[in-house]
Amino acid sequence: MLVHEISQVREHIKEWKKQGLKVGLVPTMGALHNGHKSLIEKSVQTCDKTVVSIFVNPIQFCAGEDLDKYPRTLQEDVKLCENAGVDIVFAPSPKEMYGEGHILSNDFLTYVVPPYFYTDKLCGKSRVGHFDGVCTVVNKLFNIVQPDFAFFGEKDRQQLIIIQKMVRDLNIPVEIVPCPIVREESGLALSSRNKYLSEDDKIHALALSKILFNIKNCYKKGVTDVQALSETAYSFLNEHHSLEYLEFRDENNLEEKQTADESTVVFIALKLNGVRLIDNISLR
Amino acid sequence: MLVHEISQVREHIKEWKKQGLKVGLVPTMGALHNGHKSLIEKSVQTCDKTVVSIFVNPIQFCAGEDLDKYPRTLQEDVKLCENAGVDIVFAPSPKEMYGEGHILSNDFLTYVVPPYFYTDKLCGKSRVGHFDGVCTVVNKLFNIVQPDFAFFGEKDRQQLIIIQKMVRDLNIPVEIVPCPIVREESGLALSSRNKYLSEDDKIHALALSKILFNIKNCYKKGVTDVQALSETAYSFLNEHHSLEYLEFRDENNLEEKQTADESTVVFIALKLNGVRLIDNISLR
Repeated sequence: MLVHEISQVREHIKEWKKQGLKVGLVPTMGALHNGHKSLIEKSVQTCDKTVVSIFVNPIQFCAGEDLDKYPRTLQEDVKLCENAGVDIVFAPSPKEMYGEGHILSNDFLTYVVPPYFYTDKLCGKSRVGHFDGVCTVVNKLFNIVQPDFAFFGEKDRQQLIIIQKMVRDLNIPVEIVPCPIVREESGLALSSRNKYLSEDDKIHALALSKILFNIKNCYKKGVTDVQALSETAYSFLNEHHSLEYLEFRDENNLEEKQTADESTVVFIALKLNGVRLIDNISLR
Repeated sequence: MLVHEISQVREHIKEWKKQGLKVGLVPTMGALHNGHKSLIEKSVQTCDKTVVSIFVNPIQFCAGEDLDKYPRTLQEDVKLCENAGVDIVFAPSPKEMYGEGHILSNDFLTYVVPPYFYTDKLCGKSRVGHFDGVCTVVNKLFNIVQPDFAFFGEKDRQQLIIIQKMVRDLNIPVEIVPCPIVREESGLALSSRNKYLSEDDKIHALALSKILFNIKNCYKKGVTDVQALSETAYSFLNEHHSLEYLEFRDENNLEEKQTADESTVVFIALKLNGVRLIDNISLR
């Protein structure tokens, strides 16, 4: 069932809670692909009721980013959700979420701000304020849906780690369920932004997963020096790639690693013909 | 019943929710007086179950403020609560609320940050970061207790307005119940910090309420010019008083008023022998 208003969602949730049903939330920005589908299926399996939110959240886009051209495919999204057994698709307007005529700055809006130690690195370095916008909207969605479980993809692993930190810090009564990255057979991690890629771009985009798989291979063979592991990346990069970062960090608190170990996650971001792509892999 | 652990509170709340009971929360820093008592009584009247939290929240004190010497009177507080029919007194340690060995800065902790337009004025001007600490701990308490109603005194009216704004902005499913200021017969607004005042100080402290009552009188007689109303204050001030602010602002969004009207609140803060006192009055 497609619902646009907060009050409608609350009515259903109230009824479900009365019946003691477990509620799962899958927060998305729509343009759903098989990655989202795996989160949704996990929720449908785990919970009595599943809510998928579809909201292209303006306050998590930085100046000059792709807010306006971000893919919006509501009809197909709703179909995918219905087929997967979703109970409510919650697709609010920006006005419904942030009120009318509001300036969406921290001058006039309460923000949930994750700690700088978690946001001043990786994607947060180039996307200043992005994770403030993410935490704020996720907090709002948690307060609207009051889920028992919420499902987040490991594809956006910095986001996942920051959400987990927020939940701990603010004692939010929601269990965060991390879901593994879904990849094409080629290795390319699924992403709504893959729609921006040409067929040629998609071939060059394989560098991300190749670099990560290769690093994990080397690690499993016994290489733990981060410098040495990083250097294996260069053979996969060419003039099409503009590498933003390749970093080795702790899976819980994003501390930098000098020596790779089981708790290490390797993060990569690069630009390809103006499209920014990210990927990551756990060495566990 | 006195409870120190978050998990214990959650157990009781879970049981109550199952029974469909309405829960009220009165968040305090302890050193309870008749002002708090009126909030507690309101909650006991309105709700099936009442939780009073007692927590001197370190992150809402600024450098150089009275965190260490803030009055702590847990035994008497618990007695007052029991007599008033409170079901749970929740008195966590700082470690229970913020974990051990944490640096309580926004480098390592998720904060709930109310909008600058609400916090860059009145008490927020001299107490930088104070309301970030307040909103963060109130958010945590809301997530722990999941109350249907929460009771806040109008004594700290900027705080009340900021909490109401936070609840709207983050869609928090809690109804905020404002409770009127309780005053001594002399007019002095009750405050835990009144314990810092000598008998002499208490006489000089009457300036706050006298100024406010006099302004309201003048307004009711037809004076609406803020400049003129402000000037009536000076006759009540002497060398013991160091006036911090006397301001006329909107009761909903704290916008400054040039002309007083029914939606105007008059805010005052002054220091008396190093003790900072605040008070306010609605002109309605």
